[in-house]
Amino acid sequence: MEQDFLTSLRTAEVIAVGSELLGPTRVDTNSLYIAEELGAVGIQLVAKMVVGDHLERIADACRGALARSDVVVLTGGLGPTDDDLTREAVARVLGVPLVEDPAITRRIEARFARRGLRMPEINRRQAQVLQGARSLDNQNGTAPGQFIEYRGKVVVLLPGPPRELQPMLRALCAGVLGARAGDERIYRATLFVTGRSESHVDEAVQPIYARWREAPVPIETTILASPGQIELHLSLRSREAADGARLIRAALDELEARLGEDVFSTDGRSMEQVVGDLLRARGLTVAAAESCTGGLLLSRLTDVPGSSAYVAGGAVVYSNALKTGLAGVPAEVLAAHGAVSEPVAAALAEGIRDRTGSDVAIGITGIAGPGGGSVEKPVGMVAIGVLVRADPVRIRTFHFVGGRAQIKFFATQAALDMIRRALLAAN
Amino acid sequence: MEQDFLTSLRTAEVIAVGSELLGPTRVDTNSLYIAEELGAVGIQLVAKMVVGDHLERIADACRGALARSDVVVLTGGLGPTDDDLTREAVARVLGVPLVEDPAITRRIEARFARRGLRMPEINRRQAQVLQGARSLDNQNGTAPGQFIEYRGKVVVLLPGPPRELQPMLRALCAGVLGARAGDERIYRATLFVTGRSESHVDEAVQPIYARWREAPVPIETTILASPGQIELHLSLRSREAADGARLIRAALDELEARLGEDVFSTDGRSMEQVVGDLLRARGLTVAAAESCTGGLLLSRLTDVPGSSAYVAGGAVVYSNALKTGLAGVPAEVLAAHGAVSEPVAAALAEGIRDRTGSDVAIGITGIAGPGGGSVEKPVGMVAIGVLVRADPVRIRTFHFVGGRAQIKFFATQAALDMIRRALLAAN
Repeated sequence: MEQDFLTSLRTAEVIAVGSELLGPTRVDTNSLYIAEELGAVGIQLVAKMVVGDHLERIADACRGALARSDVVVLTGGLGPTDDDLTREAVARVLGVPLVEDPAITRRIEARFARRGLRMPEINRRQAQVLQGARSLDNQNGTAPGQFIEYRGKVVVLLPGPPRELQPMLRALCAGVLGARAGDERIYRATLFVTGRSESHVDEAVQPIYARWREAPVPIETTILASPGQIELHLSLRSREAADGARLIRAALDELEARLGEDVFSTDGRSMEQVVGDLLRARGLTVAAAESCTGGLLLSRLTDVPGSSAYVAGGAVVYSNALKTGLAGVPAEVLAAHGAVSEPVAAALAEGIRDRTGSDVAIGITGIAGPGGGSVEKPVGMVAIGVLVRADPVRIRTFHFVGGRAQIKFFATQAALDMIRRALLAAN
Repeated sequence: MEQDFLTSLRTAEVIAVGSELLGPTRVDTNSLYIAEELGAVGIQLVAKMVVGDHLERIADACRGALARSDVVVLTGGLGPTDDDLTREAVARVLGVPLVEDPAITRRIEARFARRGLRMPEINRRQAQVLQGARSLDNQNGTAPGQFIEYRGKVVVLLPGPPRELQPMLRALCAGVLGARAGDERIYRATLFVTGRSESHVDEAVQPIYARWREAPVPIETTILASPGQIELHLSLRSREAADGARLIRAALDELEARLGEDVFSTDGRSMEQVVGDLLRARGLTVAAAESCTGGLLLSRLTDVPGSSAYVAGGAVVYSNALKTGLAGVPAEVLAAHGAVSEPVAAALAEGIRDRTGSDVAIGITGIAGPGGGSVEKPVGMVAIGVLVRADPVRIRTFHFVGGRAQIKFFATQAALDMIRRALLAAN
C-alpha cells in the first residue's frame, strides 16, 4: 500500500456511476447523504459528478477528483454484470490489480444459499478487490464496498442502493474517515429573509461578510434567491464544539441585527411554520378569503402539522357572485372599485372574519395571469388586506413578476409575511 | 471566434454551479430537463457535475468537460454577486475577455425600473459577456445566458432558476443546437397512469416491453412511481422523423389499449389540466368544500391558466362549525357519523353545490395527520364525494400512506381522478 504521508482529510468528491442517472427521470440523492455524513466529521464535499457505465469516463472522473481532493467516493457500478465497471476503472487509475478474495466469494455464495439458490458465476466479479484495499462488509446486499489509501489520499467504493451504502458510510465515518479527518467539524446555519431583493440583501450584508472572510475563524457564506425568500447560508470550521456553536450563533445574531424583521427564520422553519407558531403562541385563529391564489394560502397554512388548532378555514371566491355570496363583499364595493382593488381586499378580510369568527383574517384579490390583465391592472397586481382583531386593516398592493404559479406563490408569501409583521407589531 | 471545424454535436456535459448544491439539502434538477431537451435533438448527456462557487474548481470542471464532450452547459453562477463566478471561470478557460454589453445593462435597468427600482451597481456584472459569445435573452430574470463556439465545440451559460433556464434552452435546441446535432433524433413519450400500483402497471406492460426490446427499432422504457401517479417513459432513436413519430405513436396506442381509462394523460398534461379541459369542453363549472386538503384541491384546479372559466370557488372548512356555516353540512349528519365519514363528504359536496350554483361539486374530509387518527379512523383515511349535475353522488373512502403533505396531495389527486372518471362516464 502506498502511503507517502498522512495529512488530514479535508475535502471530498462524489462520483455517482450509472447511465440511468443521466436520463431525464432519475437524480442522484446518495450525494446528499454523503455530504451530510462527511460534513459532520469535518470533510467538505467540494464537487460531485455523475458518469455513465463507461470505463474510460469513470476512470477519467476518478483521476480528476483524486488530483483535486483528499477523499473520492464512488457510488454504484459494483454489481455483477458487464456494465458494472467501477472496480476496473479505479484499478486502472491507481495502477493496482484486482484480486479475487475467496472469503468474499464464500460470503456471496452463503447469501444465495440462504435463499436456496446457487451463486450465478457472474457474481464472482463482486469478490474482486483492489490489491491493498480493505473490503467493507455489506449487510444488505451482495456487493462489498472497498476502502483504499493512495498517496495520502483515500478512495472509497460503495454500492448504489441507499440501504446498502448508508450503513457502510456511517461505519467509515465513525472509524477510519473520522479519525483521519482531523479535529475540525463543520458548523452550519441558514437565515431566511423576505421583503428585500437579492441584490439589496447582498448590499446590506457584504460589509459583514468581508470582515468574516478575514476573521481568525473565517465564515463561508452563500446567498441564494429561492421563490419568495432569500436564503443566507453560513458555515465555519472549528476544532472546539463550544467555539463552533458560539461563533455561528454570534454570526446569526449579527445578521439578524443588520436585517431586522426582514429575517423571518434562523432555524429552517418555513414561513407558514413561523406564522403558525406566532398564531399558536398568541392563541389566535386565522381565516382567509382568496381570489387569485385559489386556496393556496389556506393550503400552505394547513401544511403545518397541528395547524387545525389555529386555522379556522375560509373561502375561495373566483367569481364576483361568490365574493359577495361566500365572503360578504358588498356588491357596491365591487362595482365601485373593481374586483382587484384595495377596498375589495379589505372587504374580503372583513367578510370572512365575520363569517368565521376568527381573530386574524386575510383577503387576497389579484390577477395571476397569463390573461386578464390591463394597463391599469396588469398581470401580477395583487391587493392584500390583513386584519388582526380590532386593529385597523393593513392593506398593500404588490406587483409580482412571473408565471401564474409563481404569482400565486409570491402572493401567498407576501400575505403570510404581512400576517407575521402584523402579529409582531401587535405583540 | 475560433471555429476550427464543424463536426456534429453528439455528446454533452452539464456543470451545475452553486455551493448550495453541495450541501445535504439541495439537488440539481435542471440537469434532468437538460438531458430531456438535448436528447430530443439527439445530443446525449454523458456526464454531469456539481461544483461550488469557486473560480478554479469551476474552470477545472469546464476544462475537463470541454476535453471530453462536444457541448458544455454550465448552469447557475450568473447572478450579480461576488460569488457568481461562472462568467469569469469560462473566460479563463477559453482565454477570452469579458466585455460589458451596454444593451444588456439597459435591459436590466429597465427591468428594475418597471418595478419602480433603480438598478443596484452590482447588477452591472450581469451585462458582462464573453468576447465572441451570443447573449441569450432572459424573459424571466435579469441574467442573460451566453452561447459561444470554441474549436468546433459549444459552451452554453444558463441561469440557475428553472423558469429562466428552460425557455432559453428550448430556443437553443430549436435553433443552433438542433441544427448542429446529427441526423438521429430521440423520440420520447410519457403516459401518466392512475388507479393502479407500480407493480400492477409493471405486470400489465412487461409482455409488451419484452417485445419492444427485440424490435428492429427498439423502444427503451422506464417506469417511475411519482406522487399520485405512475409514469411510463418511452424513447427510441430514429433518423427519419416520420418513422420516429409513427413508431412512438403506435407504442402509446398499444399501452393505452392495455391500460384503458387508467391512462389519464399521454401528452404531458397534469391531472388538473386534464380535468380542466374536460370541464371546459362540457361547459361545466366546479366548486369544492375541503376539510383535510385545506384548499389544495382548489389551488391545483386554479393553477391552470384560464381556469377562472370553470372554477367557481368553494370553502375550506376545518372546524365543524364552518362545515355547517360555510358549506351547509347539517349538524345532525356531523353528530351521527363524525366529521370524517362518507355522509359528511356527500353533504359537503351537496352544500357547496347549493351555495355556489356550480355543475360539479366535490366534498373532501379526512385525517391528514400526523395527529388525530384513531383505530377506527386512522391517519390517511379520506372520504370524497363527487356530484355531477343531477347524477347520484359518487362516494369513495381511501386509505393513504405517507406524511401530511403526501396525504393532502394524494387526496386531491384521487378527487381529481374521481371527477375525471365521472365526466367521462357522463360523456
